[in-house]
Amino acid sequence: MSQRAYTVGIDYGTNSVRAVVVDTADGHVVGTRVFEYPSGDHGVLLDPKQPHLARQNPVDYIEGLRIAVGDALKAADAEPDFARDRVIGLGVDTTGSTPLPIDAHARPLARDPRWEMNLAAHAWLWKDHTSAAEAAAITETAAAHAPELLAPIGGTYSSEWWWSKIWHCLKVAPDVFDAAASWVELADFIPAVLGGVHDSTEIVRCICAAGHKAMYSDAWGGLPPKRFLERLDPKLAALRDRLYDKAWPAGRPAGRLSDDWARIFGLRPGIVIAMGGFDAHYGAVGSGIETGTLVKIIGTSTCDCAIAPASDRLASVPGICGIVNGSIMPDWYGIEAGQSAVGDLLKWWVEGICAGGDSLHADLSAQASALAPGESGLVALDWNNGNRTILVDTRLTGLILGQTLHTTRAEIYRALIEATAYGARAIVERLRDYGVPIDRVVCCGGIAEKNDLFMQIYADVIGQPMLIAGSPQTPALGSAVSAAVTAGEAAGGYARWDEAQTRMTRLKDKRFDPRPDAKRVYDELYGIYRELHDAFGGVPGAKPDFASLMKRLLAVKERAAGAAA
Amino acid sequence: MSQRAYTVGIDYGTNSVRAVVVDTADGHVVGTRVFEYPSGDHGVLLDPKQPHLARQNPVDYIEGLRIAVGDALKAADAEPDFARDRVIGLGVDTTGSTPLPIDAHARPLARDPRWEMNLAAHAWLWKDHTSAAEAAAITETAAAHAPELLAPIGGTYSSEWWWSKIWHCLKVAPDVFDAAASWVELADFIPAVLGGVHDSTEIVRCICAAGHKAMYSDAWGGLPPKRFLERLDPKLAALRDRLYDKAWPAGRPAGRLSDDWARIFGLRPGIVIAMGGFDAHYGAVGSGIETGTLVKIIGTSTCDCAIAPASDRLASVPGICGIVNGSIMPDWYGIEAGQSAVGDLLKWWVEGICAGGDSLHADLSAQASALAPGESGLVALDWNNGNRTILVDTRLTGLILGQTLHTTRAEIYRALIEATAYGARAIVERLRDYGVPIDRVVCCGGIAEKNDLFMQIYADVIGQPMLIAGSPQTPALGSAVSAAVTAGEAAGGYARWDEAQTRMTRLKDKRFDPRPDAKRVYDELYGIYRELHDAFGGVPGAKPDFASLMKRLLAVKERAAGAAA
Repeated sequence: MSQRAYTVGIDYGTNSVRAVVVDTADGHVVGTRVFEYPSGDHGVLLDPKQPHLARQNPVDYIEGLRIAVGDALKAADAEPDFARDRVIGLGVDTTGSTPLPIDAHARPLARDPRWEMNLAAHAWLWKDHTSAAEAAAITETAAAHAPELLAPIGGTYSSEWWWSKIWHCLKVAPDVFDAAASWVELADFIPAVLGGVHDSTEIVRCICAAGHKAMYSDAWGGLPPKRFLERLDPKLAALRDRLYDKAWPAGRPAGRLSDDWARIFGLRPGIVIAMGGFDAHYGAVGSGIETGTLVKIIGTSTCDCAIAPASDRLASVPGICGIVNGSIMPDWYGIEAGQSAVGDLLKWWVEGICAGGDSLHADLSAQASALAPGESGLVALDWNNGNRTILVDTRLTGLILGQTLHTTRAEIYRALIEATAYGARAIVERLRDYGVPIDRVVCCGGIAEKNDLFMQIYADVIGQPMLIAGSPQTPALGSAVSAAVTAGEAAGGYARWDEAQTRMTRLKDKRFDPRPDAKRVYDELYGIYRELHDAFGGVPGAKPDFASLMKRLLAVKERAAGAAA
Repeated sequence: MSQRAYTVGIDYGTNSVRAVVVDTADGHVVGTRVFEYPSGDHGVLLDPKQPHLARQNPVDYIEGLRIAVGDALKAADAEPDFARDRVIGLGVDTTGSTPLPIDAHARPLARDPRWEMNLAAHAWLWKDHTSAAEAAAITETAAAHAPELLAPIGGTYSSEWWWSKIWHCLKVAPDVFDAAASWVELADFIPAVLGGVHDSTEIVRCICAAGHKAMYSDAWGGLPPKRFLERLDPKLAALRDRLYDKAWPAGRPAGRLSDDWARIFGLRPGIVIAMGGFDAHYGAVGSGIETGTLVKIIGTSTCDCAIAPASDRLASVPGICGIVNGSIMPDWYGIEAGQSAVGDLLKWWVEGICAGGDSLHADLSAQASALAPGESGLVALDWNNGNRTILVDTRLTGLILGQTLHTTRAEIYRALIEATAYGARAIVERLRDYGVPIDRVVCCGGIAEKNDLFMQIYADVIGQPMLIAGSPQTPALGSAVSAAVTAGEAAGGYARWDEAQTRMTRLKDKRFDPRPDAKRVYDELYGIYRELHDAFGGVPGAKPDFASLMKRLLAVKERAAGAAA
């Protein structure tokens, strides 16, 4: 490259949108801005009468796009080498599945005065769980009549996903459903906005959202067949005609920057807009994902991403929420797994039960660090928010076992971290069992950056070094990487994903290696965890020995206390 | 009775001794005094290097006797009808098994300057758990060679009991063991002190301590046969000759007040000293125990007492810690069961985990009262301190199940109360299964008096009205009742136990009746508790359905929330 080139990564989170302007030569961020959504409760529209409801106002998205990108560019202007005409593309990642109903001109229904007060006409945020009944019915119908649809999604369709939400809208707000010309994932909507699309049929759809959330596959010609959707509701089958026939992997442009937005941003019109994608997937890209690498995005919950070459065994890995060809990077299967409560589980304990705040988090972490593995005598199940992988069951709940009258809050704090580590190990084992190689684990997210105890426990439990992504904003960085690859080498970007990642992403120097003594103890405790996990999780053939379980835990505890003394 | 008569009840607790002067006509207390033991930590001698050690200084006992009884009588002097020459007897109850080594003159070894600094020469408080290995060996040896010894004690010999402690002393302090002419339970020692006994062979032993703690039974001629004790250690067999051949039920005098103590107290010499007994048993007497009544003494732990006519089925009730002919009242089988952590479990939660004090106890109780049965979605096992009845296993630990990210500390507080109620129900069911009638439940102790939520949950879970003993100091009152019966009708006491109880004890007006709707929910939750209890407790033939358990709990929760809404 003769002169510097830049891309913009735009990351739509649950409460805010972040834009970063990145130097494609080395991934250096030259400008950044976070915009907090102004509507609702930190950007989430709630209904006191429907605790499972979580919506967003599409106006926040547009306003956030204008301000976050605009201000990030302003910040970049201060850098000596930066110039707006050297920006060669934009990439977008979002939460998902977050579908919104749109009219024939690709405008959100919620912007129409007729619908702006109707929550069903807004965006259905990923964590909206109003559609549990529809999800169960979709799973049941598919299991009976089209089991092939369930294979790539781990066997269970979720209430968080596309069809559950749209069907629920049809049931509870049929006027909104009827008024919608089409529906669009937020990850496809923003690129369409940037590209100036004014026709709902022209929106380019990404395979990431389509494959993981909408049961799209080339194997059956795109979205689920109409005969399947008719079993759910004939109106869903009719809607299929107004959706899309084809979805695309990253690398192909979703569009070109429209004149209007180019003027707003002071960028060149026509620069590429990368294919949209989910935050976790682009976070994996920004963490340097490659075959053999598991990327863990650890926050309130954890999302695991891996890629693997196509193989027969990947056709269905039980309990893995998604396996989609091209969903993370083209020509690789993108594999997604996750844990429903990780940071949230610690938050529950520290804030919900112990009534503390940040300083108590720090105190308990320090006290828990002084404990030897096994010394608490506790084992917990990390299911306070159900189990996403490998059991795919939201109707599971938490368990803490082994407490005495002397058990401390710090011991339980540590036991909850350990529980999430055991859950993480179960995912790694399941992936390996089906031929997905995992040679290294790269972690990102707030917990990975800040909680050394947490990371050391993960290394000890999983028996694998824990590496830390170099960027604190890997999704936005990954979107910028995608924009650089989409723009291509001639424009100042890259021809290959691996080259772009090598140059634009890095790891922190800090790493956590498994300690053999700790691993031995955790191997035993993981066995106990799996006895509980398999029995309470309903794994067929589980053979727990519960009559001896508490005594085995006490024996571990006494050995740990003896070794510590 | 032509004129008033009085008895003195003396109750040796863990931290203090209480004396009450009682009017035999109606049980009215005319004078009372509590003496806090001055030694150690609230009367308990501890060793930082041995966390399971708990001893007491016999000097505290004697000093406490002098001051508590002396001051209670002084207080009584203020009553118009009282006169010291109308005191017709004294009764004593104590913790147990609390044995102490004595010399040939019946003096505690600990009062000898040679031994006063040696903790092994002091009293081995009931909750001293240094003798776990000896208890296990006694159980094992008896199971193999003399299973009949285990039948009356529920199948398992405890580390809290007589032989475990004496054997442990022999192992760790053989000089103390060798210096002891004999050993005596605190419940027998105090009556011997009051009676001026100066010869260790003349101490009168109560069947209460002998039968429940020392494997004494007339069926095998008293204490365990020498050939059994020889299997443990020949020195224990040799000790047997220096202990006792016969133990007696209450009703027979343990002695007569010595001239020395009569002078100290200003009482008539020669008045009766009732047979000593354990606090729980005399607490049952003071609560008006009769056949068909279960008395629950609810404090840090719970002790359950019942009486029943002799029957073959009572020969051995599995998991019931003691069934001894005459141990509570003569001519009835005294039956003792218990739960290792009740108040302590709530204290652990409120103080240990939530870091609160009395006001948080009150807050959580108020919040928990607002919850409907089942609404928390939680079930817990009450085993943070092991399970005394019906599993008799100290190596069991706690469990909390069903929590979500929204579970509150008040919900867990309530779940822990419910867990102890389920444990209480398991005891009631076991007793009924073996023919012990339970038509009413009388509760005493601090929790019974103060915690209405707790008592209502017990009524709903057990399905039986919970009545409350009228006296806040039922053990001392029961000792006074025993003294009145032992003194006899001619002296101004009573000829019959039931008559004495009818006159001297009463219930509070307050009572808690089961609510049918709550009972229905708790019947279902108790079934879930028993699945966990039986599986983790190692009950043979347990057939849990853990794969559906969390879902069944959620269904209960959702129904409860729906009913509450």
